[in-house]
Amino acid sequence: MFHNSSDTICAISTPPGQGGIAIIRISGVDAFAICTRIFKPAIFQSKINSELDSGQKSKITFGRIFSSDEILDEVLVLTFHAPHSYTGENVVEISCHGSLYIQQEILKLLLANGCRMATAGEFTQRAFLNGKLDLSQAEAVSDLIAASSASSHRIAIQQMRGGFSNELAVLRDRLLHFTSLVELELDFSDEDVEFADRTQLKDLAQQIAAVIRRLVDSFGTGNAIKNGIPVAIVGETNVGKSTLLNRLLRDNKAIVSDIHGTTRDAIEDTVVIGGLLFRFIDTAGIRKTCDTIEQLGIERTFQKIEQASIVLWVIDLTNETQETEQLATQIISRREGKKLILTLNKADMLTDEERKQKTAYYSRFHEDYIVISAKSDVDIAALERKLTETANIPKISENDVIVTNLRHYEALTHALSAIERVIEGLDAGITGDFLSQDIRECLFHLGEITGRQISTEEVLGNIFSRFCIGK
Amino acid sequence: MFHNSSDTICAISTPPGQGGIAIIRISGVDAFAICTRIFKPAIFQSKINSELDSGQKSKITFGRIFSSDEILDEVLVLTFHAPHSYTGENVVEISCHGSLYIQQEILKLLLANGCRMATAGEFTQRAFLNGKLDLSQAEAVSDLIAASSASSHRIAIQQMRGGFSNELAVLRDRLLHFTSLVELELDFSDEDVEFADRTQLKDLAQQIAAVIRRLVDSFGTGNAIKNGIPVAIVGETNVGKSTLLNRLLRDNKAIVSDIHGTTRDAIEDTVVIGGLLFRFIDTAGIRKTCDTIEQLGIERTFQKIEQASIVLWVIDLTNETQETEQLATQIISRREGKKLILTLNKADMLTDEERKQKTAYYSRFHEDYIVISAKSDVDIAALERKLTETANIPKISENDVIVTNLRHYEALTHALSAIERVIEGLDAGITGDFLSQDIRECLFHLGEITGRQISTEEVLGNIFSRFCIGK
Repeated sequence: MFHNSSDTICAISTPPGQGGIAIIRISGVDAFAICTRIFKPAIFQSKINSELDSGQKSKITFGRIFSSDEILDEVLVLTFHAPHSYTGENVVEISCHGSLYIQQEILKLLLANGCRMATAGEFTQRAFLNGKLDLSQAEAVSDLIAASSASSHRIAIQQMRGGFSNELAVLRDRLLHFTSLVELELDFSDEDVEFADRTQLKDLAQQIAAVIRRLVDSFGTGNAIKNGIPVAIVGETNVGKSTLLNRLLRDNKAIVSDIHGTTRDAIEDTVVIGGLLFRFIDTAGIRKTCDTIEQLGIERTFQKIEQASIVLWVIDLTNETQETEQLATQIISRREGKKLILTLNKADMLTDEERKQKTAYYSRFHEDYIVISAKSDVDIAALERKLTETANIPKISENDVIVTNLRHYEALTHALSAIERVIEGLDAGITGDFLSQDIRECLFHLGEITGRQISTEEVLGNIFSRFCIGK
Repeated sequence: MFHNSSDTICAISTPPGQGGIAIIRISGVDAFAICTRIFKPAIFQSKINSELDSGQKSKITFGRIFSSDEILDEVLVLTFHAPHSYTGENVVEISCHGSLYIQQEILKLLLANGCRMATAGEFTQRAFLNGKLDLSQAEAVSDLIAASSASSHRIAIQQMRGGFSNELAVLRDRLLHFTSLVELELDFSDEDVEFADRTQLKDLAQQIAAVIRRLVDSFGTGNAIKNGIPVAIVGETNVGKSTLLNRLLRDNKAIVSDIHGTTRDAIEDTVVIGGLLFRFIDTAGIRKTCDTIEQLGIERTFQKIEQASIVLWVIDLTNETQETEQLATQIISRREGKKLILTLNKADMLTDEERKQKTAYYSRFHEDYIVISAKSDVDIAALERKLTETANIPKISENDVIVTNLRHYEALTHALSAIERVIEGLDAGITGDFLSQDIRECLFHLGEITGRQISTEEVLGNIFSRFCIGK
């Protein structure tokens, strides 16, 4: 259905920057020929071993990259013979010293010798076009690289291994069988025969609807796991919201950023707690004007927290109670299905007696409360446990199929409508041609997910442009 | 001379961060055994091919990394059988998906199964200890990775290939021959024999002194190439020093940072111009107080530019001339061997007539001047050419041996003193035992460079700690 591009493409596949090793990946019919022009194998290797295109499925050759007559670097060259490669094409991976200069110069040499720069995700796109992966598996590669928590990682691996595709394939095959029977009836329409048993078909349609419904429903969880569970920290100014946020970020960021000095400042406000990704939504503090909570501030805050599923309402235990009560009324009355955790902060600044008294006072606003001190790190671990409990994300096991991709979710929603129309149609006793049309539509949308029904370059371009370069 | 540590070490060798691929390198006797515990080869591969320790010099195996019973990632495993590896030990390189999560989890698995984290440069240190590289070659690996210009890259490659070591080895061997003859004489001291021809020895000593002197002298160039040619931009406040610096940085930084979005902000003020690294030294502008140039400011500036080899003196063409004249007297009279470029800025703000007149006026301060506009990017390219010309770094060819390393420079300086004492001693006709002592000292210092004479873990530790982790 597609013409695979005949270009040979190249890109740096390792993370950007300087390191011990960098990998430059090349894929396409001319991969071996182009590399042979810039690479000379070391002499101690046997002839068969030193020829890049020796016909071996895969091998490692040591040698030097030359720029004109000058040695640019000593490298390892990994060769993968089509179709035994990631893309299904001839692939070369040059493992060079990881200086920026060397990476750049090798790229320049490859471009000068007939490669072109790969676009984002183009290696994986070629793997899809060559049938090495279906589309949902290809999309999982991108999710896998971006996964920063155990849960999102697990879902991506599951999808990359084809768990999702397999589940759909079985349904699709059974439905396809029925639709061909129904369509056969149409050919014999004069004779009023019924090849497709309507009761069995309805059973199957109901089974399929149930499976799709389960997948559609899993998107809430999947999306939360992939993009982070949205948490809004709300409260008046100076109750310690920033301190709390920094505490949560600092305590947990280290886990991710311990890998030689990576800082994750770019994604400021997401953090992994207990294997789950949380995404903190910044809300400006609600200001008081002359002992009155400013209504405008509350409105702004509520607009902001519309996206949150958990609200951390922070109260300063040492504070006056007048305005907090006004705010409480507003927040309690407008929770709108969000999960609310009342967080009583600055506990370390009170005596035991005061703390007891204040806690008793505030806890009547909301039964789910916790007493902490963000600054002195008192009971932050308990708050973290409460966050993961409140998020209530079911533990994902290796075999759970969870939808995390909006494109898949939409296709499934359309497939669900179609199969529901099939069920209704069967109940109403509609004719085979209408039935067939709805079944075909359901099949089409299921096929979209694995890429069987994706037929435009544009759609594919959209999907793969979200990848990183070099993958 | 050393006990090679029996630990099996591991580290991430690719640049830190997220990317398409990351490489985790493992080296040591247990490398294959440890990896076998966490890795299962894909079933389609033949048995011989799927066993990591199949005795093949090097090979690629496709399979999965498992954490408990769960699939962590699909990976390529590269195995290198001792001594056919970078370190000379058994080496495994795991090429995994480049998510931070996966990199971290694979490291954790390796640590749990008996690896320990490699220290900075430990892989290369093992390569040295196992005789794969001499010490100066090992040091070149680190220089190679850090090299950001064509020149520093070329020197590092030359040194890594052993150019430096080879030059020294020849000298050392010839000197060693003579010293054994001299020492033989000592055994026959009663008989007053002379096995070592004093005239030949003096010839050799002079040859050696000449070579070492050339190497010592090359350090000025080598250091400038490696650490950047120091340039101070001086001038009064508001003459456009910052605009000029930003222009030079912006125009040239792109070359380095075009590799997918790398920013080099950490090394703010170095930039590659015409293949050479320049290092710009920040000097505060010299202030005027009541139409007089403040002497204190000039002193501060001169202290700062002590490290510079080129001074870019920026003058605002649109400015009054009174104070500039005072400053000129100071700068001209105190150039102290620095190369001076008079940079007449803001040329675009004058009419042709004014520009001509002002240029004539200022150019009498210094014959080497250039008229530019930093803001409007007029003749910045010409200034860049002038900078590379003024730097006057000889074009490094592939076979030039240039000293860039302070440790080598110091060892060579000591070797030079020793060999000069040998020459003096020969002239003075000193006895063989004194002669032998000086020759031995020269040999010792030459040996320090390639690591033959390095005998403490501490010295090695110092050298390799400057490496990055994973190399």
